[in-house]
Amino acid sequence: MFYVGIDLGGTNIAAGVVDENGKIIHKDSIPTHRERKDVEVIKDMAMLALKVIKDSGKEIADIKSIGIGSPGVPNNEKGILVYACNLNFKNAPIREEMQKYVNLPVILDNDANCAALAECVAGAAKGTKHSVTITLGTGLGGGVVIDGKIYSGFNNSASELGHSIIAMDGEQCTCGRKGCYEAYASATALIRQTKRAAVENKDSMINKLVNGDLNKIDAKTSFDAARAGDETGRKVVAQYIRYIAEGLINVINTFAPEVIVIGGGVCKEGEYLLKPLREIVYSEVYFKEEPQTQIKAAQMGNDAGIVGAAMLGR
Amino acid sequence: MFYVGIDLGGTNIAAGVVDENGKIIHKDSIPTHRERKDVEVIKDMAMLALKVIKDSGKEIADIKSIGIGSPGVPNNEKGILVYACNLNFKNAPIREEMQKYVNLPVILDNDANCAALAECVAGAAKGTKHSVTITLGTGLGGGVVIDGKIYSGFNNSASELGHSIIAMDGEQCTCGRKGCYEAYASATALIRQTKRAAVENKDSMINKLVNGDLNKIDAKTSFDAARAGDETGRKVVAQYIRYIAEGLINVINTFAPEVIVIGGGVCKEGEYLLKPLREIVYSEVYFKEEPQTQIKAAQMGNDAGIVGAAMLGR
Repeated sequence: MFYVGIDLGGTNIAAGVVDENGKIIHKDSIPTHRERKDVEVIKDMAMLALKVIKDSGKEIADIKSIGIGSPGVPNNEKGILVYACNLNFKNAPIREEMQKYVNLPVILDNDANCAALAECVAGAAKGTKHSVTITLGTGLGGGVVIDGKIYSGFNNSASELGHSIIAMDGEQCTCGRKGCYEAYASATALIRQTKRAAVENKDSMINKLVNGDLNKIDAKTSFDAARAGDETGRKVVAQYIRYIAEGLINVINTFAPEVIVIGGGVCKEGEYLLKPLREIVYSEVYFKEEPQTQIKAAQMGNDAGIVGAAMLGR
Repeated sequence: MFYVGIDLGGTNIAAGVVDENGKIIHKDSIPTHRERKDVEVIKDMAMLALKVIKDSGKEIADIKSIGIGSPGVPNNEKGILVYACNLNFKNAPIREEMQKYVNLPVILDNDANCAALAECVAGAAKGTKHSVTITLGTGLGGGVVIDGKIYSGFNNSASELGHSIIAMDGEQCTCGRKGCYEAYASATALIRQTKRAAVENKDSMINKLVNGDLNKIDAKTSFDAARAGDETGRKVVAQYIRYIAEGLINVINTFAPEVIVIGGGVCKEGEYLLKPLREIVYSEVYFKEEPQTQIKAAQMGNDAGIVGAAMLGR
């Protein structure tokens, strides 16, 4: 049996035919053109699903379901996308519209959950029962897998791990609260921390790396400066790693997962990020006996969305 | 079928015969005499189990299992109590010793988890799939029930909800970290907050209520002062409720349980505590659509330990 996974993003729609082990047989993508009405975008998703099935050499009868991972708040029971920032979707009837073109079950979940499921089925958390995937991006997404299934709570709003406060009355978060994990450990937060350090330390290499243009600072800049020996860069990175660690310790004390997977662009820093991160985490976690939760970089990369969405149907 | 539940505490051992709906048929208790060797305490537990079975009018054949709830870190796979502060237990072979006297399956879990299971089976979270029970006592215990079962993570160390930091670099916690939820929202924390306020506000009613003896301040003092209109008491209570709320919002954003149950002596304050608590929580929780997580006072009281331990075998 095979599964179609669709990764609905603000820029592109990616779709693939995936086998039951999470391996992509064939994939394709088209631009989202997000300014359009929801029904038009959904029709394109259906057409892309049909195209990847055909191009993969499979028939509709070989496909068990179509899974769709989206940003925002999908409601799988109702088959709608309640809300998604970056998209013109408000209670968008995804299942109903999709099934006008393709007669297959349609399953919805959010992109962070799909990433977590992909890592569980075929990535860094393969073979585990309980895992948590944290994606450090524009925001900080969390996906929790318990007994091999995505955990969504009773109203599908669970695992908003970016919106646990770690610093009461701290940094303003986009969610309205102050001091959320996301406001300290997302890539956006790192960029803000790097900019502040650059302003306060004019002679730091950070300023040279961006030719004095603070708008060119990205989530790599402080790591590049730190690796080259810049003191300010090192301090920014050390503090950022501590922020990530504080939230990870909370996650371990809460879920005791077998593996925590760190995704997002920042995870490309590899052991330079993970080694000091593990040192802090293992010295401060509540339960200090073996076995301990492993902390690993994500392995699924850009395919996580397609694979995770496909595996919703497994 | 019936189940024996044993609540092993630092002061008393309570045991009961419980039916499959969580109703206690008969119960009894004896002093723990915790200064004794573990094997002596365990023998007493076994004798008490036999006594409550007999006194309930049941036979061993009517009993499915003996569940034991304890403080500290029990390991059910190995049948041992790895560690428990307040007790002379270190890798105590509870199952092996118990079964020298009673030929029944023995199941172990910690007291916070047992309280959560009791509320799920017969208390404030009855009829729900996912619930979280927070006990505000000397520490802050957390128990998480997912799909009707206690969630313990891969190494039995999950749901240490008191040891999620909510205030980085904040109050020192007994666990070694700074800023844990427990250090702000436990009864111990409330007493500390009340003492500080009494020192800073000599003319507060708090000082009068304890005749100037700060050591007499307990978790009720600030609530008594607040109810009587004392400004300092009101401020202490308002701040304490905000601390509880911050952690509850984190729990809701993380688990989206159908019900959060608040246990411990503080929950006797009832709606005086719960009403303002709910106001803060519902205004700041990430997902603001209906249905929302309900916040309720615990209903199982002192029986939670026996019932929850018994229901481990269900």
